[in-house]
Amino acid sequence: MKLQDLTVSKWLGTTDDFSLNDLQGRIVLVHAFQMLCPGCVLHGVPQAQKVFEIFKQEKVAVLGLHTVFEHHEAMGEISLKAFLHEFRVKFPVGIDEPTKNSQIPKTMSHFQLQGTPSWLIFDQNGELRANIFGQMQDLILGAEISRLLYSTDSEPSSIYKTPTERKQK
Amino acid sequence: MKLQDLTVSKWLGTTDDFSLNDLQGRIVLVHAFQMLCPGCVLHGVPQAQKVFEIFKQEKVAVLGLHTVFEHHEAMGEISLKAFLHEFRVKFPVGIDEPTKNSQIPKTMSHFQLQGTPSWLIFDQNGELRANIFGQMQDLILGAEISRLLYSTDSEPSSIYKTPTERKQK
Amino acid sequence: MKLQDLTVSKWLGTTDDFSLNDLQGRIVLVHAFQMLCPGCVLHGVPQAQKVFEIFKQEKVAVLGLHTVFEHHEAMGEISLKAFLHEFRVKFPVGIDEPTKNSQIPKTMSHFQLQGTPSWLIFDQNGELRANIFGQMQDLILGAEISRLLYSTDSEPSSIYKTPTERKQK
Amino acid sequence: MKLQDLTVSKWLGTTDDFSLNDLQGRIVLVHAFQMLCPGCVLHGVPQAQKVFEIFKQEKVAVLGLHTVFEHHEAMGEISLKAFLHEFRVKFPVGIDEPTKNSQIPKTMSHFQLQGTPSWLIFDQNGELRANIFGQMQDLILGAEISRLLYSTDSEPSSIYKTPTERKQK
Repeated sequence: MKLQDLTVSKWLGTTDDFSLNDLQGRIVLVHAFQMLCPGCVLHGVPQAQKVFEIFKQEKVAVLGLHTVFEHHEAMGEISLKAFLHEFRVKFPVGIDEPTKNSQIPKTMSHFQLQGTPSWLIFDQNGELRANIFGQMQDLILGAEISRLLYSTDSEPSSIYKTPTERKQK
Repeated sequence: MKLQDLTVSKWLGTTDDFSLNDLQGRIVLVHAFQMLCPGCVLHGVPQAQKVFEIFKQEKVAVLGLHTVFEHHEAMGEISLKAFLHEFRVKFPVGIDEPTKNSQIPKTMSHFQLQGTPSWLIFDQNGELRANIFGQMQDLILGAEISRLLYSTDSEPSSIYKTPTERKQK
Repeated sequence: MKLQDLTVSKWLGTTDDFSLNDLQGRIVLVHAFQMLCPGCVLHGVPQAQKVFEIFKQEKVAVLGLHTVFEHHEAMGEISLKAFLHEFRVKFPVGIDEPTKNSQIPKTMSHFQLQGTPSWLIFDQNGELRANIFGQMQDLILGAEISRLLYSTDSEPSSIYKTPTERKQK
Repeated sequence: MKLQDLTVSKWLGTTDDFSLNDLQGRIVLVHAFQMLCPGCVLHGVPQAQKVFEIFKQEKVAVLGLHTVFEHHEAMGEISLKAFLHEFRVKFPVGIDEPTKNSQIPKTMSHFQLQGTPSWLIFDQNGELRANIFGQMQDLILGAEISRLLYSTDSEPSSIYKTPTERKQK
């Protein structure tokens, strides 16, 4: 799956002529969130903001994706804009395009996201390299960014302990 | 400078025959701390412990280095052992060898550490690649680990925003 | 000023026949917030929830007051309901009644609230005893609750150090 | 039991002529800790420091009590002094007097403390009013301070929900 598969009805917090093609050659981290999901507001969005503040934009791009799959009326564009303003979100945020016959918006469905928060990580060629649901530790997120920056062909990382190894000691 | 330049009077939390040579081929993170330094106790040691828990030991080794340069009588071996036990430190900790005519122990002096906490990061060949004083964010620590794992010849990283770039937006 | 001066267009999270008269004889803490105010979401509302969980309801009542004075369209009733559901707010929340010719709702105007978050604390007779803007430390909030519970006629508290005294040592 | 029952071999962080009699007429909070107990270092001691910074000293006195019952050699007076210096503890700390035939020091034994951290709270007459083992929430600690300040004859507080009531909703 590809970065180009993101289906967004509108981009906020960027210029009108913004296009995903502009991100060619960069690692792209997409934080899929809902503005009323506590795990997103308390953990995921601040983490995405930290990544945006730390890494050079010409190497690592951060995007938000507002994937509303519940309380649709409560989290419309006007509410989202106010949220992004008040929480000082500086990276571009796309609205995941709604579908007519389903609660689930298009990108969420395409990438089979399990909920929010989720992280989608694409490499410099726009290929999906990770699709992670739930909280991710900063140490691992940082390590994954660097892995893709320095190793364009590495496999899903084998540098982490398995759950069993973690318990052993 | 080299991993072999660590001068340790005694290793705790490991086997008697432990040698730095055992770490050949791994990234080695050395957390230099003092057991009564608040920044170490509250931030650095727990961070080192997290690295130890997350990354495979055959790829990434974590060592503590007890670099006592003040309150020497207060932080002797017996006190250190109790600290490591109570705070459940699981990685090996070496005692930086004291010098006769100075407050500063040998390894601290050799690597010109500015204080505690400090991080020394060595690559798979035992070459010093980073020497950082103060707190380091998890995102950056994770990114640095991965950089050395996947890129044996990369330069000190140019993937981070400069302080000026950080302020701009 | 009195608890009865709260002007609320609708109560959420309580029974239809809920009335402020029901709270006679209790300390009442009113947390004035906006659902998109970071200081409220990250600090104030969780603190109000903790008070609600710790103190007996027949002694200490906790109310939320949604005092929207900006982004009115973004924080309507539907959005608020979703927020209260997702953030598991268990205490009753009243919507501060909007005014026609001003951004400032009625209760906010009446009590001259400076913004959100704010705390209004009423004693057992429904008299306003504190009106505090911004974050309040848990130690002080707990002390103020107890002061009103045990001393119906005490003056605004003189048990705290002044800012000058705090700096002295 | 009485404040006068504190048996201290030496007071640190105060004047040589300091006496418990000086505290007559004040609430006295005694934080019993060990300098190598993580719950004390990470939670209890900073909480005691906050109480010391917030409340007027002529109303509320804060004392530390170093109750060493394990690792005695590791937590001697020299180590304790360095700890208090490095962690910027500003309130007086007494060393609980060791006993000859037991690991448990005298005050710990007298008040039957279950471990560290513990809180002993004495009223204005020096009477013990609370003996609490483990972490205490700031809201409750603040409420207990105020209860004793404003109600010299109140019973152990009935203002808190019982564990059952907490679960109900």
